[in-house]
Amino acid sequence: MDGYAVRSEDTYMADEDNPVILKVVGRIRAGDTPNIQVKSGEAVEIATGAPIPKGCDAVIMVEYTEKEGDTVKIYQGVAPHENIQYCGSDIMAGELVLRKDTVLSPRDIGALAAIGKKKIKVKRKLRVALISTGDELIDPGRPLGECKIYDVNTYTLAASIRERGWDFKFYGIVGDKEEDLVKTIKRAIEDNNDIVILSGGTSAGSSDLTANVIEKLGGEIYIHGMKIKPGKPTVIGSIPGKDGIPKLIVGLPGYPTSCLTVFNVLFEGEKRSIRGHFPLRYISAKGRVEYLPVSVVRSSKGYAVYPVLKGSGAITSLTYSDGYIVIEEGKEILEDEPVEVHLFGNIKFGLSIIGSHCIGVDIILRESNIYAKTINVGSIGGLLSIKRGEGDIAGIHLLGEDGEYNIPFLEKYKVRDAVLIRGYIRRQGFMVRRDLPLETLEDILKNIDRYRFINRNKGSGTRILFDKFLEERGIDKSKIKGYNIEAKTHSAVGMAVATGRVDIGVGIETVAEMYNLRFIPIGEEYYDFLIRSEKLEDENVIKFIETLKKVDLPFKKPLNCGEIIYRC
Amino acid sequence: MDGYAVRSEDTYMADEDNPVILKVVGRIRAGDTPNIQVKSGEAVEIATGAPIPKGCDAVIMVEYTEKEGDTVKIYQGVAPHENIQYCGSDIMAGELVLRKDTVLSPRDIGALAAIGKKKIKVKRKLRVALISTGDELIDPGRPLGECKIYDVNTYTLAASIRERGWDFKFYGIVGDKEEDLVKTIKRAIEDNNDIVILSGGTSAGSSDLTANVIEKLGGEIYIHGMKIKPGKPTVIGSIPGKDGIPKLIVGLPGYPTSCLTVFNVLFEGEKRSIRGHFPLRYISAKGRVEYLPVSVVRSSKGYAVYPVLKGSGAITSLTYSDGYIVIEEGKEILEDEPVEVHLFGNIKFGLSIIGSHCIGVDIILRESNIYAKTINVGSIGGLLSIKRGEGDIAGIHLLGEDGEYNIPFLEKYKVRDAVLIRGYIRRQGFMVRRDLPLETLEDILKNIDRYRFINRNKGSGTRILFDKFLEERGIDKSKIKGYNIEAKTHSAVGMAVATGRVDIGVGIETVAEMYNLRFIPIGEEYYDFLIRSEKLEDENVIKFIETLKKVDLPFKKPLNCGEIIYRC
Repeated sequence: MDGYAVRSEDTYMADEDNPVILKVVGRIRAGDTPNIQVKSGEAVEIATGAPIPKGCDAVIMVEYTEKEGDTVKIYQGVAPHENIQYCGSDIMAGELVLRKDTVLSPRDIGALAAIGKKKIKVKRKLRVALISTGDELIDPGRPLGECKIYDVNTYTLAASIRERGWDFKFYGIVGDKEEDLVKTIKRAIEDNNDIVILSGGTSAGSSDLTANVIEKLGGEIYIHGMKIKPGKPTVIGSIPGKDGIPKLIVGLPGYPTSCLTVFNVLFEGEKRSIRGHFPLRYISAKGRVEYLPVSVVRSSKGYAVYPVLKGSGAITSLTYSDGYIVIEEGKEILEDEPVEVHLFGNIKFGLSIIGSHCIGVDIILRESNIYAKTINVGSIGGLLSIKRGEGDIAGIHLLGEDGEYNIPFLEKYKVRDAVLIRGYIRRQGFMVRRDLPLETLEDILKNIDRYRFINRNKGSGTRILFDKFLEERGIDKSKIKGYNIEAKTHSAVGMAVATGRVDIGVGIETVAEMYNLRFIPIGEEYYDFLIRSEKLEDENVIKFIETLKKVDLPFKKPLNCGEIIYRC
Repeated sequence: MDGYAVRSEDTYMADEDNPVILKVVGRIRAGDTPNIQVKSGEAVEIATGAPIPKGCDAVIMVEYTEKEGDTVKIYQGVAPHENIQYCGSDIMAGELVLRKDTVLSPRDIGALAAIGKKKIKVKRKLRVALISTGDELIDPGRPLGECKIYDVNTYTLAASIRERGWDFKFYGIVGDKEEDLVKTIKRAIEDNNDIVILSGGTSAGSSDLTANVIEKLGGEIYIHGMKIKPGKPTVIGSIPGKDGIPKLIVGLPGYPTSCLTVFNVLFEGEKRSIRGHFPLRYISAKGRVEYLPVSVVRSSKGYAVYPVLKGSGAITSLTYSDGYIVIEEGKEILEDEPVEVHLFGNIKFGLSIIGSHCIGVDIILRESNIYAKTINVGSIGGLLSIKRGEGDIAGIHLLGEDGEYNIPFLEKYKVRDAVLIRGYIRRQGFMVRRDLPLETLEDILKNIDRYRFINRNKGSGTRILFDKFLEERGIDKSKIKGYNIEAKTHSAVGMAVATGRVDIGVGIETVAEMYNLRFIPIGEEYYDFLIRSEKLEDENVIKFIETLKKVDLPFKKPLNCGEIIYRC
């Protein structure tokens, strides 16, 4: 403590009214080597961390003293040894400071510094060889040939390995030829890697290839195929290294989300999980433990956990997932129940936009630079998420019986404590390939049973609009080829038409333009924003609405854009 | 999916009993560019990830097929578009993949790879300049002069900065001279660091020095002194850089635990906390928010949270702390209540050894290489922790009224569901400096009111033994100089005697030998191990007992060492 080193017996009689006066015979700072012998009636000014001079047995804090010339008034007595730390009370010679096999934290490094250790011997980092297999893979940065895809797994695995504090080395992409794979694995083992990880091609056959190669190289297979979803084609084995020590060989599935999930399950990093509520209904894989990727949002009751349903082949399954939930083998349906989420890393929260997807939302987010999580569950899904207190904002475009947009549905579904903000007007219509002889609505109506259609998913505003269109014109749904084919986004529709898989799709004009398709309008709709009332004060929500009002969008904006048009 | 690409209408009639037979007209693997036009009645063998040939609109999984020569039997119908992923359903051209200012996770890196981005522009890492101040500091690895200490904060801060993914640069140790500090801070700012962190000397004056220097360099002080414990002398300000942008200057307290705690509070890393139970009584700092370092152990009811009470100057406060709890300003006493622990990192659990400290335990742990957390709360504290279901093992040495060791206390304190394992025999006695004319017990008894003693803390077995010794001989405690001075460990006693601060201490022979002190025995005692019954099956507990039995200890081992001598 900063204060005065004293002989405690000198201070026994001191109190606020009757201070003891001692003669200050010196001053000691931290780092000084004092050579003072303090006698009765004397004190030494002393700083925290400074050594105690001989003769003194206590330190009185500066707060209880008053200096006057070369004396000091002491206003409080101190007990012997008060405010003194003895040698050996922290660490004594011969004491254990750190145990073998400790993972060094900043605090452990501090302990090493404290005992003067500048260098210590540590184990070398685990070395992991990364090999990607599959004829379809191209390394990012190079031109993408037709029907090829970029190699993703090498990079997600490398980043995950670095997160764990291990080292990795790339061995590149190897085609599906066995001899190439043999050569590369051999090289990886000769390079003294501890683990060789192959992220398989997408094909089921690639796990057999990996298993073959392990055996061909004199190794052993421990596991070939796991009863989990995703991750069935996982292979685990070992091949003896130069030093005789077997090197672990792991063949991971090819789908990026599967690959990363199985990696996380096998090479557990920091265990981190949260509990949340799963508000939807999900039918689980039969006969396998399922690791379902999920996205987590804050809800009024804690956390809401949404499945990421794009499939483990999709990249956006990766970026949208905060973690996964484990559905045990016997469990068939997950519905409206609490779940535990194993996190991939930190959850990035921000604004939760749950509802119908629109490119206008992307533009607003980009322009406002708001961090948001968008979950596309369609207009009805968004409305329900607001009702449950999960989403902050839901984009909806729902055509009611009487032609009114959105408001009738808020009443029908008894949404409470929310407001509807007027958004913008989107033109919906048919998207048609430019090479087809379909230029007007009449052309389409005349040929409606001749061409191949693609529809949108149930619960989407576009589907409701299309159904109404058919009903009003008395057209039998069963006459429409592809009526039951459901695309989940406008862009999936656009792409299906643009690539010639179908002839006609239904969707918004903006997407038709994006894919250079002919657009034949069938109607205008209001794409509005349903917002939880309690979120209206949220700075991001305010920013969102402000941006909606002022930003240039490829849609028509009504005069009351950004204004509350309904309260429920 | 692996299987056959088909025209879905061809399969409508297929079932288990009436398979549809299709002609296999080709095979497409992932990465292939197919040029096949499939007609009615035909199928193409296809691998997951491969492009769909023209004419086909669905894939039937291989599980529902059987190949026969150049035909395939289809045992189940597929709907149009089943098992097909459309272009654009994952990411479409123009879609937002990653938002600006995203901290790149492995999954985000995967998304970049997927769209072929090998390189992207990222913000440079935050650069932090680290300066240690204090005349008493010596850089680890160099010889430690008298009354000096090694610089710890530079290293704990550097490791913490690296944990956050930032860069750091060392500017070394600067003494307490203002001109040196001015020069070093100037250099750190010229080097384009974003933040300059000074970890102050231990003295309170060093925060004033930092504040002075900030003002001298044309900077601004935002905060000088914080109402928290530890961390009062924290200084926060800024100094304009070459680019005109103010660089943050932070002066942290000098005590290692204070320094790291305030760093963690100011530069919040990942937020991680757990809830646990605080079983003891702790009197909090008045008028300040207190950040109390704690050690966490698993208990039968969740987590038990023990304060780390060595003081923020102690290094072991650092290594023993798993995190800290926040005691709000108005709260005076923390006692037997739930607390939230803000974690420094992962909690390393392992065996919990809570009780009296003995060097024998350190030896057993070192030899067995068991990872354990030892919390020194004295014999009574250890016994109570076992009773509450917190500690796994407690080392105890408690002398009962009738001369029997340990067992009477188990009965007195009504400990249940535990066993007492016989440990070893320690000799307790007086430790005396070799230059004093005290060679026998009689010498000490004759001079008992002449020499300066140091005692052990209440609740320690040694204290109980010493009290009994005095009582049996009818010696008045008040006659003993220093009876009320309490050292918390044997080694603190040894060091106090060895350095001449006191003349006589009470403790075990092993420590007397370690400090080269004369040892005058007053009795033998049993140092036994109290173990929770449910932990007897634990592999680490078994290993601990096995090691106790066979390892060489600097203590006498009775024949029944390692055996259960009492069950309660």
